[in-house]
Amino acid sequence: MNGVDVYVLRLGHRAERDKRISTHVALTARAFGAKGIFFDVFDRNLFESVEDVVSRWGGDFFIRHIHSWRSLVKNFEGKTVHLTMYGMPLTEKMEELKKCERILVTVGAEKVPPEIYEISDYNISIGTQPHSEVAALAVFLDRILNGEVFRKEFENARTRIIPSNRGKKIC
Amino acid sequence: MNGVDVYVLRLGHRAERDKRISTHVALTARAFGAKGIFFDVFDRNLFESVEDVVSRWGGDFFIRHIHSWRSLVKNFEGKTVHLTMYGMPLTEKMEELKKCERILVTVGAEKVPPEIYEISDYNISIGTQPHSEVAALAVFLDRILNGEVFRKEFENARTRIIPSNRGKKIC
Repeated sequence: MNGVDVYVLRLGHRAERDKRISTHVALTARAFGAKGIFFDVFDRNLFESVEDVVSRWGGDFFIRHIHSWRSLVKNFEGKTVHLTMYGMPLTEKMEELKKCERILVTVGAEKVPPEIYEISDYNISIGTQPHSEVAALAVFLDRILNGEVFRKEFENARTRIIPSNRGKKIC
Repeated sequence: MNGVDVYVLRLGHRAERDKRISTHVALTARAFGAKGIFFDVFDRNLFESVEDVVSRWGGDFFIRHIHSWRSLVKNFEGKTVHLTMYGMPLTEKMEELKKCERILVTVGAEKVPPEIYEISDYNISIGTQPHSEVAALAVFLDRILNGEVFRKEFENARTRIIPSNRGKKIC
């Protein structure tokens, strides 16, 4: 098991445009082993749909609205990472990051305030090509938490999947 | 370098609803080292926006509309993988898959025809929790292609990023 507690900050969510991408970001955070996700924008539908997944599929992942992302980042007890295609390759910073006890990882929507580059401890890239904050977060968590997505158990789940070669097995 | 050539099939794209998720799927495929992506639905805006990224950021990634996904999967020369939360964990099939020379990996939108479970050589899961086809594809490619996203060079790029600790450096 890996000892790092990871939290996610979704920055700059726009309710109409980012609804589905932000849902994917939140569910990826949960499935890959993050403790919870903060949004600087409140979006009732999105929050309810993530909370609905938690209540059906188990575990204690949280989704929370915060009023100041700056104070969250600045006052976070641990290291803060901003995922951006402009940052340093994750592979170069893995050793340092794996020593952390708590990480807050920020994934922005299309435009982020420039200040996030300044106040984060690390700006980290998953490749330097345009792709997806969902992909970047997944690979960051997969590597930092050593494949926790393949091991994590979710308590009090009402639905569980039994892996199978064909079709769908649920219990 | 890894010798596997990977192609992606995006199944069941719905132009309005999936526009942004499918764009993320396509750009993730490109950035993480797949050769190209097939869609069973033609969506001019989406195709043009992916082709625009290719022309600015380089490389020879293709996006192509096919009329029959069944015949693509059935006649593919290589192994076919369907990514689904109901499948067998990737970790259990890694050794087999890494021996392949060519892989076609299918990522479905919300509902996929049950037939895809039957005609694919493998049904593979990246965890058994609901999350994101973008996340699943990213981790599949990252692991199968051994972190190609951190190494891949794109020829004839008009834009390139120089990784940096702070801010944005472009050349």
